[in-house]
Amino acid sequence: MSPRRNLNLAFAGLGTVGQGVWRHLSERSAELQARMGIAFTLYKAAVRDPSKTRDPSIPAERLTTNAMALAEDPEVDVLCELMGGTEEALAVTRTALERGKTVVTANKALLCHHGEELFRLARDKGAHIYFEASVAGGIPIIKALREGLVVNRFPLIYGILNGTCNYILTRMEREGQPFEAIVGDARRLGYVEADEALDLDGLDAAHKTAIVAYLAHGKWIPLEEMPVEGIRGVRLEDIQWAQSLGYKIKLLAVILRDFEGGSVFSSVQPMLVPRERMLANVDGVFNAISVTGDVVGESIYIGRGAGQDATASAVISDIVDAGTALANEILPEEPAQQTELRTSTPEQVIRSFYMRMSVRDQPGVLAEVATVLTRQNISIESVLQRPNGDRGAAHLVLTTHMSSEAAMTRAVAELEGLEALLDRPFLLRIADFAQHLG
Amino acid sequence: MSPRRNLNLAFAGLGTVGQGVWRHLSERSAELQARMGIAFTLYKAAVRDPSKTRDPSIPAERLTTNAMALAEDPEVDVLCELMGGTEEALAVTRTALERGKTVVTANKALLCHHGEELFRLARDKGAHIYFEASVAGGIPIIKALREGLVVNRFPLIYGILNGTCNYILTRMEREGQPFEAIVGDARRLGYVEADEALDLDGLDAAHKTAIVAYLAHGKWIPLEEMPVEGIRGVRLEDIQWAQSLGYKIKLLAVILRDFEGGSVFSSVQPMLVPRERMLANVDGVFNAISVTGDVVGESIYIGRGAGQDATASAVISDIVDAGTALANEILPEEPAQQTELRTSTPEQVIRSFYMRMSVRDQPGVLAEVATVLTRQNISIESVLQRPNGDRGAAHLVLTTHMSSEAAMTRAVAELEGLEALLDRPFLLRIADFAQHLG
Repeated sequence: MSPRRNLNLAFAGLGTVGQGVWRHLSERSAELQARMGIAFTLYKAAVRDPSKTRDPSIPAERLTTNAMALAEDPEVDVLCELMGGTEEALAVTRTALERGKTVVTANKALLCHHGEELFRLARDKGAHIYFEASVAGGIPIIKALREGLVVNRFPLIYGILNGTCNYILTRMEREGQPFEAIVGDARRLGYVEADEALDLDGLDAAHKTAIVAYLAHGKWIPLEEMPVEGIRGVRLEDIQWAQSLGYKIKLLAVILRDFEGGSVFSSVQPMLVPRERMLANVDGVFNAISVTGDVVGESIYIGRGAGQDATASAVISDIVDAGTALANEILPEEPAQQTELRTSTPEQVIRSFYMRMSVRDQPGVLAEVATVLTRQNISIESVLQRPNGDRGAAHLVLTTHMSSEAAMTRAVAELEGLEALLDRPFLLRIADFAQHLG
Repeated sequence: MSPRRNLNLAFAGLGTVGQGVWRHLSERSAELQARMGIAFTLYKAAVRDPSKTRDPSIPAERLTTNAMALAEDPEVDVLCELMGGTEEALAVTRTALERGKTVVTANKALLCHHGEELFRLARDKGAHIYFEASVAGGIPIIKALREGLVVNRFPLIYGILNGTCNYILTRMEREGQPFEAIVGDARRLGYVEADEALDLDGLDAAHKTAIVAYLAHGKWIPLEEMPVEGIRGVRLEDIQWAQSLGYKIKLLAVILRDFEGGSVFSSVQPMLVPRERMLANVDGVFNAISVTGDVVGESIYIGRGAGQDATASAVISDIVDAGTALANEILPEEPAQQTELRTSTPEQVIRSFYMRMSVRDQPGVLAEVATVLTRQNISIESVLQRPNGDRGAAHLVLTTHMSSEAAMTRAVAELEGLEALLDRPFLLRIADFAQHLG
């Protein structure tokens, strides 16, 4: 059967993921063509160094160093932007969309920072943007949110979106080693991005959170309105104390939508997850997302978040969807824009907290701390006090009942003024979403 | 914006799920129309008793008792077959497809028994069949397999596809109560289908397994070629012994594809799942599916498998997809047909086993049993022997290393001839898929 449509694919960037896409598409092209009635031609790829050895090896005439030329080439139907970064990638993506081309991208930083502009441009030009690979690589979460759960509103989405942090936290817990010991291994294994802040300070997870929030709620949440904290502050003791309290510590992305109040809150923070929750047991490099829909209830998606093949699988799923859309002239479809949606105020964000303090080991300290918290209407749920090895100092660890972020911020400011405190209190949030789970 | 297309929806059957679909579609129709550019009209529903009270209440002129008339009505674009059963449902579905209408169905028994015919008919008529709600209600697994993981081949898929059995096994384990005690509660809660064999004997899970296998491998596996066993034989002691060996017992659907040998094997059986596997911790009425793709690796999907809203969410997702396909004149798309695919022989199915025997408490019994197993090249991994309370009888529980189903069948036949055995050996398979997980 001859295909109904032939599509020329161009690649801006052909690193690990791009080579994976090229290889798997070559190997499966007959199957895909039989099934979809669409032929995909691996037309050209823009790379920095055409002489480099690649797997698969790619004929020289298919390689160029000029990504922009591919975005401008009228022969190109679908541009796969796999170069990363936000400068050249932005220019190339813009140009392709301006010419009405379909863009498939795995670039979460690009979408987080320029998504609003790019989707507007795509809308104006009738162009498509596909981005399944930008969040949780091997998990088809974008498709699930857009299509599978289409009738739902989403009061709560939370997940483990950075495999590197999850890997480090898992090993800290299992081996009883501190962050510094494990992060070295993660670097050696190539798990940590060259720009370490992306992984370790939660930025990569924040980029993905912004994308999921846009899909679920139709609004690009500016990073400035999203509390983002990585895992560098998490000590082995925190993991162990959390364990003794029935929790595991995970770097969690959280998107809370208040439909009555008309606001949305998202954050990326290390959190204490109750051990009986599914996500508490997602370990190692795996990603996981829990989606609560008002109709469907909770569903959970787990898989590899990164790696050549998992990401390539997602990119190819997008290419196939792009093929269907182009062959059938389907119009791009977007979440209903909710530009008026506000970010929830710290008074509106209610959660319980874990707090670790280093205090003078002297009578009355706990009473002082408790008094400060009481003044902010924060009630203590559990307390753990232990000498911390240093002379005259003790660890004071406590968990609280539900309180607002605002009250906790005021309490922390007051606590910092206490003479008995030897250090800034270290705060973690508890992932107890009972009130948001239908 | 006026919709590009208006679609008339008709419902054959308007029970719990149908009413859920009707209600949620009414409530969200403006949102869906804004987003998709398609208007859905709740045109008519065929019910047994139009005078019955329904939620939402439906105008009398929208109700009929004649489902077949809806399948024939030229005004109907999409027929939602939600009546259940396989007789009238088959006739109605056939008629709708013959007229080129799109059918959305949640009827797994219908698809399992008549899928081959219905999909062929749909192909001939250019009609669509959507069936997301037929497997694992709230989990968009059909979409994940068809689209999200489109480039993958699937050496292994396994899952918990019957929430009722999972609920019963979970409560047996947690409360230390036997099957008989818990199944009564499940009945009272309305969790067990009127035809109990569907749930308790594994048939419902088998129907769903056949559907997933078709999607993944392009072949309808006849139920006669699928070992199907429910949970009635699982005793509380099995659960407890499994626990002491590091396993939980789950009713698992398994689909193993041998790409080199060109065969496929599927089964529904209670199995021992290693406690560290994600699916071992999916408890209560939840469903879960683990999909291993040769490109993407393992991904896992967890959610509610049944219930009004979860199923309605899936049906609506199908209705929206149907709308997109009809508005854009997209052709139906099917897995590549693999009619030549064989079912693996019992010699080819390799797994490890758990075996519970009731034996005379006398010297030499274990040696006799071991001799029989050794003769079949089955090596024992662990043994547990305990007096079983009756005078002169003992429980003998053992687990084996990997062996073929064929060898185990021969061994069991021999064991049954042993004078020392007081009962048929009870066999469970161990869900150790290490060799199938990329």
